[in-house]
Amino acid sequence: MPKKITTHDVQNLLRDYQLDHEGHIAIEKLGGNAARARFRVGKQHLRPGDTVSGPTLMALADVAMYAALLGEIGLVPLAVTTNLNINFLRKPAQKDVIGEARLLKVGKRLAVGEVTLFSDGDPEPVAHVTCTYSIPPRAKAAGESG
Amino acid sequence: MPKKITTHDVQNLLRDYQLDHEGHIAIEKLGGNAARARFRVGKQHLRPGDTVSGPTLMALADVAMYAALLGEIGLVPLAVTTNLNINFLRKPAQKDVIGEARLLKVGKRLAVGEVTLFSDGDPEPVAHVTCTYSIPPRAKAAGESG
Amino acid sequence: MPKKITTHDVQNLLRDYQLDHEGHIAIEKLGGNAARARFRVGKQHLRPGDTVSGPTLMALADVAMYAALLGEIGLVPLAVTTNLNINFLRKPAQKDVIGEARLLKVGKRLAVGEVTLFSDGDPEPVAHVTCTYSIPPRAKAAGESG
Amino acid sequence: MPKKITTHDVQNLLRDYQLDHEGHIAIEKLGGNAARARFRVGKQHLRPGDTVSGPTLMALADVAMYAALLGEIGLVPLAVTTNLNINFLRKPAQKDVIGEARLLKVGKRLAVGEVTLFSDGDPEPVAHVTCTYSIPPRAKAAGESG
Repeated sequence: MPKKITTHDVQNLLRDYQLDHEGHIAIEKLGGNAARARFRVGKQHLRPGDTVSGPTLMALADVAMYAALLGEIGLVPLAVTTNLNINFLRKPAQKDVIGEARLLKVGKRLAVGEVTLFSDGDPEPVAHVTCTYSIPPRAKAAGESG
Repeated sequence: MPKKITTHDVQNLLRDYQLDHEGHIAIEKLGGNAARARFRVGKQHLRPGDTVSGPTLMALADVAMYAALLGEIGLVPLAVTTNLNINFLRKPAQKDVIGEARLLKVGKRLAVGEVTLFSDGDPEPVAHVTCTYSIPPRAKAAGESG
Repeated sequence: MPKKITTHDVQNLLRDYQLDHEGHIAIEKLGGNAARARFRVGKQHLRPGDTVSGPTLMALADVAMYAALLGEIGLVPLAVTTNLNINFLRKPAQKDVIGEARLLKVGKRLAVGEVTLFSDGDPEPVAHVTCTYSIPPRAKAAGESG
Repeated sequence: MPKKITTHDVQNLLRDYQLDHEGHIAIEKLGGNAARARFRVGKQHLRPGDTVSGPTLMALADVAMYAALLGEIGLVPLAVTTNLNINFLRKPAQKDVIGEARLLKVGKRLAVGEVTLFSDGDPEPVAHVTCTYSIPPRAKAAGESG
């Protein structure tokens, strides 16, 4: 049986694979086919009007989903995003952005999930994302003994 | 203040505009930025392998979202779908399909929502949809007095 | 080497698998990672305002892409659509709809393509679709000898 | 009649609104409902395996489409992306990325287009994007006399 994956494990993998946006993305919660990630927004992620840039939102969504997936299938560095669809809903505030990811399906070859993005402390979503990950063959063996 | 829209009101509008798929789509629940719709699956909606066709799922999602929107903005016949994104997750059973729609945003010009589709009685979703509706100018006045 | 697939071969497979919408979808052209399909629009596919229904457009796009894919990988009945994203651009006229499908990638496990939909004889597109197909393992062997 | 918009005009607007990714995105061609943009890839845009990051691709696609739109409707700074759908097709090389954007529709309220992304010099696309922009009311007046 694979060992339970922790936020710490995922954070380390993201850093090793340079997916944590130079330390700006933190995984805050993991498990139950879900994950919560925070983008610590700096000046470089803002746009005129003191809003957060679109690529920042997309990057957070992608990483939050990836974290949720790693929590289920183990530390598989080679899963790749094949599709990402984002609806921008409201102008984000000049604040950290929170991504709440939830897996809808984890198959042998594909995983699909959705991520809702919020400005920290605000209940109305700023964006909604669905994305698909392709899982490499034998990825399920990761962390398995024998 | 606009009068409260009921499932009955929406069902009538769908029938009048031929959007109920010849009586196969029923609105079961409405309100709170959400709606539940049922596709009463007949032989003509099946595919080999006794599964429900993709267009049937897409049609249900579209109508469920439209119902949720009508519940919020009133009986506006002219709202049009501008974008629909569907992820097919599992093979549907040879059963009715249920669509649970939830609005993510209702703006002046655009409404965005998501719909999760289930085979009746099965907790695992068969498909997930996001879609966007364009709301015609002055649509918000529908049902308003004066 | 697999034999060259013809429009006739694909049309037969679509009919056998009940994917030709009761004879309403015809494959008109095939080859070079592309396909053209026609939806022969009948009364049952119209909506008030003498326009063609959204599900009709989605069904045509899905089949046109599938035809283009079969033209490349051989007559694989088990490929399944995993994602379909449609942008509705203009109100279709009360005419046949033409779908021009083009494959963007045919991988071992996934194929991705786009389909542009036109009202017959009108150069402005009525909708644009991208979709992804999952190709079953060993599907490439279809039609191969020994 | 609005004056013809040049790549220079668009480049200036992108810089003023901090949309040029610190000078990394250059508009190379503009006109005829289309635009070509280049992302000058630096170390910070790479990922392990010497590939270009997903957010870099998404940022380029968004800006290329925006440039194509500005070429048609004039220098409207307030158009906002409402939806972006990306299919990742092939691993990009460690090279500049080129985005070829083409508008599918420019309406009064919404513009829809597609962008195909290539590694510089390689004919096979690395990603394909469709996106939708919301055009602010009266945006069409930009650059108009009177």
